[in-house]
Parts: sequence; C-alpha cells; structure tokens
Amino acid sequence: MKHVAVFGAGRIGRIHATNLAAQSGVQLKYICDAVPAAAADLAQHLGAQVADIDTVFADKSIDAVAICSPTTTHSDLIARAAAAGKHIFCEKPVDLSVQRAEAVAQAVSAAGVACMIGFQRRFDPTFNEAKTRLDRGDIGNPEMLVITSRDPGAPPVEYIQQSGGIFRDMLIHDFDVFRWILCGDGDRAAWLSATGSCLTDPAIGKAGDFDCTAVTIKTVKGRLCQINTTRRAAYGYDQRFEVIGSKGMLQCGNHRPSEVTQATAQGTAQDNPEAFFLQRYAAAYRLEIEHFFTQLQNGGSFRTTVQDGVDAQILADAAAQSAASNQIITF
Amino acid sequence: MKHVAVFGAGRIGRIHATNLAAQSGVQLKYICDAVPAAAADLAQHLGAQVADIDTVFADKSIDAVAICSPTTTHSDLIARAAAAGKHIFCEKPVDLSVQRAEAVAQAVSAAGVACMIGFQRRFDPTFNEAKTRLDRGDIGNPEMLVITSRDPGAPPVEYIQQSGGIFRDMLIHDFDVFRWILCGDGDRAAWLSATGSCLTDPAIGKAGDFDCTAVTIKTVKGRLCQINTTRRAAYGYDQRFEVIGSKGMLQCGNHRPSEVTQATAQGTAQDNPEAFFLQRYAAAYRLEIEHFFTQLQNGGSFRTTVQDGVDAQILADAAAQSAASNQIITF
Amino acid sequence: MKHVAVFGAGRIGRIHATNLAAQSGVQLKYICDAVPAAAADLAQHLGAQVADIDTVFADKSIDAVAICSPTTTHSDLIARAAAAGKHIFCEKPVDLSVQRAEAVAQAVSAAGVACMIGFQRRFDPTFNEAKTRLDRGDIGNPEMLVITSRDPGAPPVEYIQQSGGIFRDMLIHDFDVFRWILCGDGDRAAWLSATGSCLTDPAIGKAGDFDCTAVTIKTVKGRLCQINTTRRAAYGYDQRFEVIGSKGMLQCGNHRPSEVTQATAQGTAQDNPEAFFLQRYAAAYRLEIEHFFTQLQNGGSFRTTVQDGVDAQILADAAAQSAASNQIITF
Amino acid sequence: MKHVAVFGAGRIGRIHATNLAAQSGVQLKYICDAVPAAAADLAQHLGAQVADIDTVFADKSIDAVAICSPTTTHSDLIARAAAAGKHIFCEKPVDLSVQRAEAVAQAVSAAGVACMIGFQRRFDPTFNEAKTRLDRGDIGNPEMLVITSRDPGAPPVEYIQQSGGIFRDMLIHDFDVFRWILCGDGDRAAWLSATGSCLTDPAIGKAGDFDCTAVTIKTVKGRLCQINTTRRAAYGYDQRFEVIGSKGMLQCGNHRPSEVTQATAQGTAQDNPEAFFLQRYAAAYRLEIEHFFTQLQNGGSFRTTVQDGVDAQILADAAAQSAASNQIITF
Repeated sequence: MKHVAVFGAGRIGRIHATNLAAQSGVQLKYICDAVPAAAADLAQHLGAQVADIDTVFADKSIDAVAICSPTTTHSDLIARAAAAGKHIFCEKPVDLSVQRAEAVAQAVSAAGVACMIGFQRRFDPTFNEAKTRLDRGDIGNPEMLVITSRDPGAPPVEYIQQSGGIFRDMLIHDFDVFRWILCGDGDRAAWLSATGSCLTDPAIGKAGDFDCTAVTIKTVKGRLCQINTTRRAAYGYDQRFEVIGSKGMLQCGNHRPSEVTQATAQGTAQDNPEAFFLQRYAAAYRLEIEHFFTQLQNGGSFRTTVQDGVDAQILADAAAQSAASNQIITF
Repeated sequence: MKHVAVFGAGRIGRIHATNLAAQSGVQLKYICDAVPAAAADLAQHLGAQVADIDTVFADKSIDAVAICSPTTTHSDLIARAAAAGKHIFCEKPVDLSVQRAEAVAQAVSAAGVACMIGFQRRFDPTFNEAKTRLDRGDIGNPEMLVITSRDPGAPPVEYIQQSGGIFRDMLIHDFDVFRWILCGDGDRAAWLSATGSCLTDPAIGKAGDFDCTAVTIKTVKGRLCQINTTRRAAYGYDQRFEVIGSKGMLQCGNHRPSEVTQATAQGTAQDNPEAFFLQRYAAAYRLEIEHFFTQLQNGGSFRTTVQDGVDAQILADAAAQSAASNQIITF
Repeated sequence: MKHVAVFGAGRIGRIHATNLAAQSGVQLKYICDAVPAAAADLAQHLGAQVADIDTVFADKSIDAVAICSPTTTHSDLIARAAAAGKHIFCEKPVDLSVQRAEAVAQAVSAAGVACMIGFQRRFDPTFNEAKTRLDRGDIGNPEMLVITSRDPGAPPVEYIQQSGGIFRDMLIHDFDVFRWILCGDGDRAAWLSATGSCLTDPAIGKAGDFDCTAVTIKTVKGRLCQINTTRRAAYGYDQRFEVIGSKGMLQCGNHRPSEVTQATAQGTAQDNPEAFFLQRYAAAYRLEIEHFFTQLQNGGSFRTTVQDGVDAQILADAAAQSAASNQIITF
Repeated sequence: MKHVAVFGAGRIGRIHATNLAAQSGVQLKYICDAVPAAAADLAQHLGAQVADIDTVFADKSIDAVAICSPTTTHSDLIARAAAAGKHIFCEKPVDLSVQRAEAVAQAVSAAGVACMIGFQRRFDPTFNEAKTRLDRGDIGNPEMLVITSRDPGAPPVEYIQQSGGIFRDMLIHDFDVFRWILCGDGDRAAWLSATGSCLTDPAIGKAGDFDCTAVTIKTVKGRLCQINTTRRAAYGYDQRFEVIGSKGMLQCGNHRPSEVTQATAQGTAQDNPEAFFLQRYAAAYRLEIEHFFTQLQNGGSFRTTVQDGVDAQILADAAAQSAASNQIITF
C-alpha cells in the first residue's frame, strides 16, 4: 500500500485526488491547500486528512506526492519532495523558467526519487493509440505533424497575466506532443518560427499576450511540424493532430459526448467536442495516475519525465522569443 | 449507507459488483455464487464476504440485492428477495416464461419492494441522449425506428440451447428499445411479423434456433419498427438505431475505442466498434447502478421496471411464435 | 451514328434527352410529348425536331427510342417500338400490371429488339461500387440487406392516386435493389411480409395509400432483406443501403452537395443529402444512357432488362397484397 | 456564338477543350500544340481544326483563347492575345517572374481585353460553398486558416527542374486560397515565414527543390494562415482547408469516388480521396469555363483576375526567398 499526499485542491487537484483514491494499492492520506476550506472539503469527500506541507514532508509513511498547486509553487515543491525522498507526480509545467526547471531536474536526479510530469495527452486513448501505431510502423517514417489546439474560451485576464504567456501556458502541451510524435527516434528541434495575434479580446493583448498563434518547427532530420492555436474556438475544445508518414497518415479526432447524429431541415449535425480538458482528458487523467503507480511498482521509467518537462519549456521559450523578436530561432 | 449482496460472480456479476463497490453510500457485503472459487475471488478483490443465499436473505442489514446469476434463477431469486423485503436489481430477463415473469411482477408489487431490470441500453450515453432529444421534441413526433443489433460472434451452442432462443435472449434488448423509443406516450405494439434464418453456423439451426432475424412491429398509432440482427458481424459489435420523426431523424452510432483515422494506400479507416457489450456498455452499466441507488434514495421510479421486463418478454414470445408459425401476430 | 427519339419532355424526359444529346455517336432526332410546347421547348434547346409518335415509328432511320412518358403509356409504347424494330430504353416501371408487363417482355423477346429498363440505382457510382466489391468477394457471401429509402416529401395526391400505390411507385426501386444485391447468384424471394401506415398526410390515406412502409423479404437461401420507407423525411432524400456478408459489411451512404462541415456553438454539421432524385442520381442517369448505347454497340446484355422490370413488379404486387391482407406471402 | 482557340493539347488542355466544346453558345474552332499529333487527335475528337498560333491570332472570328500550354509560354501568349484583341483564359501561373507577370497584367489592361486566370479551386463546389458561407457571416469574422495541400506523388524531376520550385508550382494555388479566404475584405499579407525539407526523394533535393513545406502568413489585420504541403501523400490527393472565425469553423473535406464504407475485421474504411487534380477538380474545371463565358457575356468581372495571378506569385516568391534565406519576410 502506497501512501500519498496531494498538494492543491483546485480543479485539477480534485481530479488527481479522486483518481488516486480509486487506485488499488494506494491510500490517499493528506490534502494540502492554501485555502483550508478547499482542502477540508476534498479531504472529507475522499476520506483523507487535511495537512500542511511540513507535516507531509515530515511523515515517513508518505511514499509519494502529487503536486497540483499553482505553477509558481511547482519547482519549490518538487525540490522539497526530492529532498524528503518522496516520489513525485507534478502537473505541467515544471517551472516557467527553464533554468529553474533544469535545476529541479538535477535535484530530482541527485535525490534518486522518481518524478513524472503530467503531460496528460500522452495518456489520451486516441493520441496514445496513434503513437502505438506510429511506433509499430503502420505509416512508415514520420515526416510532418499538424497540431490543432484550440480552447473553447480564454481564461480570465488575471490568470493570463501570471501564466507565462500562451506559449508557456497553453502550447506547452503541443510542444510535448511534437517531441513525443516526431522525435521518438532521437530527432530534435533545429529551427523554429512563431508568431501570434490578439484577435479575440483586446484585454489579452494589453496583458502582453497573444490569443492566436502559429508555430512551425523543423527537426534535425528535416521533419516539419505546424501548430495552430486559438484561445477561443466558438464550437468548443478542439484537440486534434495528424501525422503524415512515408506510408500514410494517422489523424486523431475529437471525442464527443455522444454518438448521436441529428438530421433536420437545418443540416446533419454531430455533437461538438467534449466541453473542455476535464471532460476530454478524463480517461487520460485516470490512466496517467495508474501509469505513475504501475511504474513506481515495476521500477520502470515514466512516459513523461521531468526532462520532458524541461525540453518542452525550452521550446516554449524559443517560441515566445521568436514571436517577440520576429526572428527565426535555430537550436 | 446501503448494504448490498450480489448473486452471481460471472462476467456480468463482476461488472455490477465492481460498480456497486465504487458507489458512494453503498457497501458491498456479500458475493454469492454456485462456484465457491468464483465468489471468493471476486469477494476478496472487492473487500466483500462470500455467503450463501439463505444467509443473505436472513441478514436484516442487507437493503438490496443484485441478481446476476443465470437466467433460470432470476424469477425465484426475485420472489425470495421480495419476500425478504430486499430491494432488487435484476439482470434481464425476468424469466423466459411470460407467465412466471408476470407472477414475479405481482409478488414484487405485493411486497412493496423496489425492483429494477437491467436493460442497460436505456443508460447508454448515446442512446439516452437520443431519447432526451426525442422527448424534447427535437425531431417532432416519432414515426419509424430502425434497430441494428448485431453481435460479433455467436455464444457456444450449449448456451444457445438454454437461452430461450434468439428472440428471448438477444432481441429482448431491442424489444425494450422499441418500447422505450416508440411507445413513450402510451403507444404499444399492435402487429408483429418475425422471421429468421440460420446462416452462420448449422449447429445453431440444429439447436432449433436462428442466427439472423428480421422483425417488424407496428404500433396502435401506426408507427413502424424494423429490427435486424445477426449473431455474427465480422466487423464487430454493431449497436445502432435511428428514429425518424415528423421533423427529422436521430441516429445513434457505434462507439469506438479511439478516434484515430488511419489513411494509407488501402483506404481511410476508423476503428471498428467497441469489441462487445462489456466495452460498449461500460458507461451504461455504471450509470444504471448509480440510477438504482439514486432512485432508491429519492423514492423515485426506475427507468426500467419489472413491468418493462414483462412487456419485452411478451414481444419476444410473439416474435418467436410468428417466426415458428409463419404468421403475423396481432395484439 | 445512332438516331434516337425521346417520348416525354417532362422532368425525367429532359434528363434523358440531355444525356442522349451529349452522347458521342448518338443523334437525338425527335422529341414527342402530348404537350406540344414542352416538346418544342426541349427540342429547340437540344437541336432536335418535334414529332408525333407515328412519325417516329415510321422513320426507318430511328434506331432506338427512350420512353419517358407517363407510366400508363409504357407497355403500349414498348410493344409498338418492338413491332417497329426499334431498340428501347424505358423508364421504370414496365407496367403497373404484372400480366401486361410479362406480355410486353414476350413481345420484346419475339421482336428481337434490345430493351433496357431505367433502374438508375444500379448505375449510381456508390451503389455500383458496392455491388462490384460484393461480387469480388470483399465481404464474403451476402446474408442480410437493409434498405433505407426515404423521399423528402410526398408528390401531389393526384399523382399518388394514379401511381399504383407506394409499393409499385416508390419501392419498385428497392425491390430491384434487393434482387440486384441479394439474388446475384440465382437466389430469389421465397417469403415476404409488408405493412404500412399513413402518418404524414391523411389525404394519402384517403387515396387508399400508405406513406410509410416496412417490408421484409426472405430468399430461398435464407437471406434476409428489410426495407424501410417514408414519403416525408424532413432532412431530405435519404438513399442508403447496407449489405452484411460473412466477412463484413458494405454501407452505401448519401451523397452531399458539398463536403463542407460547419462547426458552431449549435453543433458540427454536414450538408444534408442531395435534394432529390434528379440531383442524387444525376451521374446514374448519365451512366445508364451511356451503358445503353455501349451495350447496343457491343451487342452485350443490359444490366437492367425488361425481365428485371417484371420481377420487381411481382414483388411490388406481393407487398401490396401482403399489406392489404395482413398475410405473409410465400412464393 | 463565341469562337475559341485552345493553346496546348496536353492533360489540362484536353480538359479545358472538352469543357469548352460542351459549353452552349461556344464553338471550339482551333487547337494548337507544338506536337502536331496531339493537336490533331484532340481536334478530331472535338470536331475542331488544327492551327498554328499565327493563324489563331490573325483570325478575326476568334473571340477568345484558352492558354493551356507550358508555363514558360504563358506571358508571351497572353501579351500576343491582348495585342490581337482576344479575350483570355490562362492556366496558372501568369509567369514564374513577378516582373513579367506584372508587365503582362498591364498589357492586358491597356488592351482592354478580359483575362481570367485558372485558379480552379475557387470554383470547386466544396471550397466555393465555404466561401459563400464565410461571406454570409455564418462563422463571423475570419481569424485563422489552415490549408492542407498534399499531392499523391511527385512529378518527374525533369518537370520539377523547370517548375520554378514547389512554392511557385504547387503552393501557388494555396497562396491564392489564402488571399481568397482571408483577404476578402481588403486585408493582405504582412508577414511570411516559410521552410521546407526534402524527405521523399533525394533527386528533388538535388534539383534544388523541397518536397515538403511549411508556410505561415500573418495579415495586416493579424489573421494567421498555415499551409502544409507534401509532394507524396501515400493515401492520395489531400485537398482540405479549414477557416476559423469568431463564431465557428468551416472545414472543407476531400471528395471521394464513392460513399461506400467497408467494414471488415480489419477496420471500417471509406474511399481515399479522388485520385488527383483531374478527378478532384473535374467539376471546378467545368464551372470555371462556364464562369468565363458567363462573365464575358454579362461584362462582369472574373472571380480570378490576372492581378490575382500576380499577387499569388508575389507570395510564392516571398516564400521561396524566406525558405532559402532562413528569414522572415515582411511586406
């Protein structure tokens, strides 16, 4: 039986805590949150205790922690968990600063604890099936990747101001998908061009951020990746990618709440995609927690390491720099 | 906290027991099975105890039982549970004999216990969404229903011999869907024609059964329903229906394991449907158990009553009789 | 160069005349119609002459005639064309009376002229591709066929009154598809059950007809076919069939005016099907005329013979009789 | 009756000549080709005469010419046609040199003849329907455009060597689509980044060209466009685009030869896209010729003017320059 504490009782913390509590062989012991009522509510619901951070790290019975608190706390909590000898599951990103993220990666490595970063898309049944087929050679050698990554609506400007910007906050997932899909054989980014606009809400522009972006990456082997994003897709949360190989293409489509098609005089309509990430990636969140404990048990490596977190962050920085400077970045 | 016992630790018993155990406010206390090892294995896995039937019915703390044992035991167990004052969730069918099913329905009614029949399709997210839209008037008044109900492969002939025949074993679900979709306003079957063939395995014919059937039902209001079934769809478990109304059509499509589309020189292919009922109706099984306890709690009525079980059985009998006699049945 | 006359300058006559005029190696010489202005307009548009029937049959230069006049005139015109030694393309049906249709078939045979019946669905690119794959064995041996045949709206009641009823007027195409798809190896109908309702317009019922029907046919080899039809599908002209074989299924979907998908907050919608038969079967009409002349040239047999017309009519009669008498028909 | 001559009896010349010959009110008089046998064959097939260029331009009866000869001849033939007072339909591109293209545009303007460039995608039923809906406001204000433009296989290297490179030869269509879809309200390109790789055939790289490219364009209003192309999509000719607006998205899907779906144990497959441009754009070629003559007749303006040809060429040049220099281009 593994004993676990969760930092953060917000939206994503509740998801992970609930999945942890349902995991066989795992006991959810503590919930920590800066807002005591949030911690208490979640703890009661799942039969756990409220605790403060120090208590968690001091408790020898705790095997692992799940870090679901705000981004600004990630690197510090990882470092402290590593120092305390706890295994770590941490939501993306490791840190908005590549330098700090790298320092944390070293701390984790030095402490010899396991650390997995929550890039949940690698656990989505559709995306993961595509990766399996790609690795099996179903479409030959990968050549191009087109990622469509569109949110149904922008977060509050207050969030955006502290988010590190759209490249670090939203596209971080897409940079990880790029690395996962196109760089599986050791290939890596060689060339990057990014630009953006503010088209949906002037307040986002005032906050110094974009709400629509277009990124192109070329790898050392000459593979091409294009990423298109918007903060506001009126029809919902649009999460697709397609990878073209020498023998074919794999397309990952959206998931829908139901498979009902309604045909009336107005047209023949299917459901829009699952509303947002909590719905779209519900299975992925479940599967990544399962993966975390399975690999802890087996001593196997994680599908998404702390180094993956660092490497995605480097691409996010490069994109931000390219868009700000109107320059192509070469690595 | 409701205390519950499960009869039957086979394929469907494991599903229901697992969902029961995960239900908040519910404690799974007993597992009963004629095969002790099966009961013990499931009980251990879910933290329950093995018990015999008499123990369950004698235990005052037991609020409800879930009957997942073979069809031939259903009516007897329902009757005994009713006599013992336990609420009942029972897998379909109530009984292969309409007469016995009706007697059981009366016993349940007389005992004043709640009894829900496991017609899981009414809880499938896609089918249920279609029903919601139909009731909301999205396609006007329903006029026609086409049900496609195809299994990926036939069960062993030994099973078929005791199944009551394809109409009572397999189409029972489709007769329930017919009633649910076309008879929501009190309409009912007035006319039925059924026929069948044995095309996939001569052993099924020798056992006196069909493996392919075609049923037509007309209601009192003149609505038309066609059901086509086969025991062997080479491409998988095909579970669809479409209902045509005065203002449009609702089509319920299959669910797929992933939304990957693979395009190669050989064609552009999607996944085949979910493999079989355990996969296709995984969400439905979860939702029907949740519904059972929610309605117990609220004192509300079940979406699928014991009378629904009786009425579907009457249609199954009529279909078997029509196909055997080459006669149209009128009600 | 073949010289041709067209009887009938109505909706379907215009289609065939236009396709004839564009056929290389064919000269459209005459247009005949009971309404002189209709004939004149079409003749002028296509560079042909207006003529009466006698002139056409007396003109030795005429090789072939296309009969696109009202149904009641078909058998008489076929008989006269056969007597005059002209090859014949005739719109379905041969005649509403099976007896007269058979007599006409004999007359054609005795005269030694070629006669093709316009069952255009056999020339539709989608349906024809399915047939090709079926014959190639892509899905093994055919076992079941489900035909969806729905019109966007009913014709005027005056038309319905003279149409011979929905089975002879509308389902005649579906009976031909049944024979084409399930009876390709010499199999034939052994058992038929039909019923219908009047749900969309009481005037149709008053005229003694149905507007919704459900037909089941079983063949000598035990294959099953279900046909569902309505005169009023609010979402458009719905023309599909699916055939299930021992190794898989072929589904024929609708054609759409464009492949645009529109995603808004209201849903993700594709175009409704092509509006009606003139649009849906535009390619089929072109290809069947091409087939007619190619086979005339080669001396090959037609894909749709006068005997096919007779045989579809026999099924239509049986369906009408079954629905009227509430009896299953066996052949 | 308009009298027309066609220059070029190759693949595209045959298409246009055939459509011209079928156009009502048009007489195809001459076919010119450097290969006399090609001209003779096509002329005979369509009932036209073989002629040399001087004869065409000297013939006062000729109203218009269709230029379907090799790219290198376009600007010269346009200039001569303009000088001779003939209206002009010319296949894309106007010229591989922007400077010559602009000179030709001025010559056309000075001569007062009408000149339409064959950007056939603007006449494709699907693409055109999307444009109609966009202009109607169905998805609000356009913000992003993603163009997928993939050929089924590369042309011979000899062709590539004289093609002007992939940006001028293949993406010229995509640059025109960008302008058509995103710049309809006077917006225009402000920023362009392009890169490419040679992944499918080293011979293409040796010829100094790419076979895969990724282009991003930002407009003055901040709209974003991404174009991804490959010369070799193993699954066929993939021609799609999607435009995202403030209220939704319009996706243009591929056309398929048939709407058959085949479901077997291997998966559920639809047809791959129409094989190549002659099939995919068959309707578009027909409609653009019809548009040419309708507008000539009405004195209306063309949907694709010689200036559109020049403007697309400017973008192609910029993309080639960006990819060669590893620099972002600003306009």
